[in-house]
Amino acid sequence: MIAAKYKEMLGAKSVIRELSEYATARGKEIGYENVFDYSLGNPSVPAPEKFREAVIKLLTECNPMEVHGYSPSLGIPSVKEKVAESLNKRFGMNYTGKHIFMTSGAAGAIAHAVRLVTEPEDEVLTFAPFFPEYHPYIDLSGAKLKVVPADTENFQVNFGCFEQMLTEKVMAVLINTPNNPSGVVYTKETLESLARIMTQKAEEYGHDIYLISDEPYREILFAGVEEVYVSQFYDNTISCYSYSKSLSIPGERIGYIAVNPACREAETLINMCGQISRGIGHNCPTSLIQLAVAETVYETSDLTVYETNMNILYTELVRLGFTCVKPGGTFYIFPKALEEDAKVFCQKAKNYDLILVPGDSFGCPGYFRMAYCIETEKVERSIPALRKFAEAEYGVKK
Amino acid sequence: MIAAKYKEMLGAKSVIRELSEYATARGKEIGYENVFDYSLGNPSVPAPEKFREAVIKLLTECNPMEVHGYSPSLGIPSVKEKVAESLNKRFGMNYTGKHIFMTSGAAGAIAHAVRLVTEPEDEVLTFAPFFPEYHPYIDLSGAKLKVVPADTENFQVNFGCFEQMLTEKVMAVLINTPNNPSGVVYTKETLESLARIMTQKAEEYGHDIYLISDEPYREILFAGVEEVYVSQFYDNTISCYSYSKSLSIPGERIGYIAVNPACREAETLINMCGQISRGIGHNCPTSLIQLAVAETVYETSDLTVYETNMNILYTELVRLGFTCVKPGGTFYIFPKALEEDAKVFCQKAKNYDLILVPGDSFGCPGYFRMAYCIETEKVERSIPALRKFAEAEYGVKK
Repeated sequence: MIAAKYKEMLGAKSVIRELSEYATARGKEIGYENVFDYSLGNPSVPAPEKFREAVIKLLTECNPMEVHGYSPSLGIPSVKEKVAESLNKRFGMNYTGKHIFMTSGAAGAIAHAVRLVTEPEDEVLTFAPFFPEYHPYIDLSGAKLKVVPADTENFQVNFGCFEQMLTEKVMAVLINTPNNPSGVVYTKETLESLARIMTQKAEEYGHDIYLISDEPYREILFAGVEEVYVSQFYDNTISCYSYSKSLSIPGERIGYIAVNPACREAETLINMCGQISRGIGHNCPTSLIQLAVAETVYETSDLTVYETNMNILYTELVRLGFTCVKPGGTFYIFPKALEEDAKVFCQKAKNYDLILVPGDSFGCPGYFRMAYCIETEKVERSIPALRKFAEAEYGVKK
Repeated sequence: MIAAKYKEMLGAKSVIRELSEYATARGKEIGYENVFDYSLGNPSVPAPEKFREAVIKLLTECNPMEVHGYSPSLGIPSVKEKVAESLNKRFGMNYTGKHIFMTSGAAGAIAHAVRLVTEPEDEVLTFAPFFPEYHPYIDLSGAKLKVVPADTENFQVNFGCFEQMLTEKVMAVLINTPNNPSGVVYTKETLESLARIMTQKAEEYGHDIYLISDEPYREILFAGVEEVYVSQFYDNTISCYSYSKSLSIPGERIGYIAVNPACREAETLINMCGQISRGIGHNCPTSLIQLAVAETVYETSDLTVYETNMNILYTELVRLGFTCVKPGGTFYIFPKALEEDAKVFCQKAKNYDLILVPGDSFGCPGYFRMAYCIETEKVERSIPALRKFAEAEYGVKK
C-alpha cells in the first residue's frame, strides 16, 4: 500500500515552483531575457575559483581511495576541525570538531536538528514570514510547526504573540536571520529578548528549549548592518549552516550543524546526529565536497551584486510608494502589495512580465517576495515594468 | 528535551566498527600490514580513471552555475535518462527517466523506498543473513523489520519460514543479492518462487506487497554465476542501487531508485520520493557527482581482485574443513565458525591478528564474515595465520 501522507502531498504544488515554471514557459515565448523573473532564490554568481581549484587538486594530487572513500558518519574529522576553527576566529566561539556535524546543506541540518530535540507531537515555533519548506522539514519529522504571526512593522519578532505561543509543548524555536523572505537581519536586542524569554520559560517549564538557527544567508550582509552570531546569545543553540549561498554551490548539498559547546550535552547531541542519519539514510555528505569546502572555509563568491540589486529595487519601490522594510542581507525583499490580496497583485504583475511571489506561502499575506539574485542589468530593465505596473493598475504617479 | 530514541542508540556500538577500530589500534602496535583486517566492506580498488576525467571535465569545461546549481528534487533529468537507458540495455527493461529517482547511495534509496510503501507499524521482511544497518533504516522509519531465519544450506531463501511470516501486516520484502554478508547470488528459481508467493499473498490479502531490492553489489559477479535482474521477476519491484562499489566511490553518496514501469503507479511512487526527500532533508544528491556518474554509467573499477581473493580464501577454508557456501559475487564470504559461538571464535582469531566479524549482527549466529576487499598480497599472507589459528585452537590438521 502506498504511503498515504506522501501521496496526498503530491497535490499541493509549491507556488514558487509554479511561478518559476511559468517564467520559463513565458521565456520561451518572448525570450527569457524579457521575463523579470524574481521567483527563485538561486545564487546568480559563480563559485569562487578557489573552490574549483580545491576540487581539481583533490582529484589530481590525492589518493582516490581517500578522496572518494567513506566519510565517518559525523563528517571527516579534519574538515570538522577546520569548520570549528573558522567559526571561532570569526565569532569568538570555542567550538572543536566534536561540536560539528557535517550535513547535506541546511535542509539536512534542520532535518537532524529537529529530530535531536523533539519527540512526535512536540511543537516547534517559527516566525512569519518564514521559508515555506519549514513545514515539510518539521511536520514530517513528527513534530508540529507553529507559526508566530509577523511583526510587519520591521520583521523582527512579535514578542507579544511569541510569549503567548511559547507553551510547555514547545521544545524548539526555529529562526532564520538574515531572513528569507524579508531580507531582515535580527538585531542584538531581538536576540537578547528572545534568549531572555526562552531561558525564563525553560526554567518555568523545567525542560530545555532549543534554539535552531537556520543561517544559510549569514555571509550575505549589507553595509551598515551589524553582524551577529546567534549562538552567542543563547547556550542551547543548534546552528544550521549551508555553503549553498556563500560559495554558490547549492547543488553540492554541503553544510553543517554546530552545537554551542555551552549547550547541555553538546557532544551527545552531535553523536546522536550520527544515529538520526542512519534512520533517514543520509550517512554523510559527499567526501569530495567536504574536503573541498575545508579548503575554502574563509572564501565566498563575489556577493556584492546582491547589495547592488537590493539598492536599486529598494530605492524604486520606496519612490513608488511601496511600504517596504529595507533588507539587511540575503537576496530577498518583501514589500507590501498595493492591494489587500497579494495573490491577485502578483497575478496582475504577470501581465508586465514581473514574476513576484505572494507572501501567503511565507505566512504573511498581503506582502510579496522578490528574489533579486539575477543580473543587475536585468534588475535595471525591470524598473520601467515595475513603474508601468504600479501606474496602470494602481494609479501610482512617479 | 533530547529525543530519547536516538540517545538510547548511542549505547549500542556497531560490532563491525568496534572490530575495525581494534584493527586500526593493533596496526599501530605491530604495523597495519601485519593485521589481517577482514572487518570492513570498503572497496579496495580506485575509482576508474574515466570517473576522475568526467569530474575534471565538468569543472573545467562547463558553466559552474549549472555544475554546482540545484538539482531538481527527483534528480537531474539528463542523468535519470542515462541511468534508465543503461538499465534497459543491460537488462532488457523499459525504464524512462520518469522511473528513476537519484539518491544518496543505497542507504538513501532504501530510506525512501520503505517510506514509499509502508505506514508506521507495517512490517518489512528480510532474510538472514542480512546487512545490520537494515534495522535502523527500517525501524526508524516507523515500520518494523522482521527477519526470516537463514537457509544455512545455501543462503538462498528459507521458503517455509517466509510463507509463515508473510502475514497481512507485511507491505514490503527487502532482499539483497548479491548478498552481504554471504556473497551468495539468488538463483532464478529463488526469485521465481519469491515472486510467485508474493503475488499469491498480495492477492489473498487484497493489497500490494512491494519487493525492495538492494543491489549495491550487482556488478561484482564471479565466473559461472548467472546474472539476474530482480525487477524482471516481479512487477512491484523498487530497485535500490549505489555506485559505491561498482565505481569505488562510497564517499560520494550516489545511487538511485528504479521503479519497474509495470509497477502500479510507478510514476506516482517516483514523484512521492520528492516529497519524502523534503521531510528527511535529502533534497537531492550532489549535482557534480550526478553529472559525473551519468558519464560513466557503463564503467566499473577493475573489480577482478575480489574474485581472485575469494578463490584463495574459499579454497583454503574448504581445505581446512570449514563449512562454506561459495560466494557468487560481492567481496564477502560467510563460513561456519569452528565452534558454536562465533563471537568466541572471532575473539580467539584476534590472537592471530585475524579480524573476523561474528555472524550474530547479521542475524545468523554461528557463522562469521570476512570482507576480502583488501590487497591479494595480504590475503595470501593471512593464510598461514588462518591455518595456525585452526590448528592451534581447533586441532584442524592440514
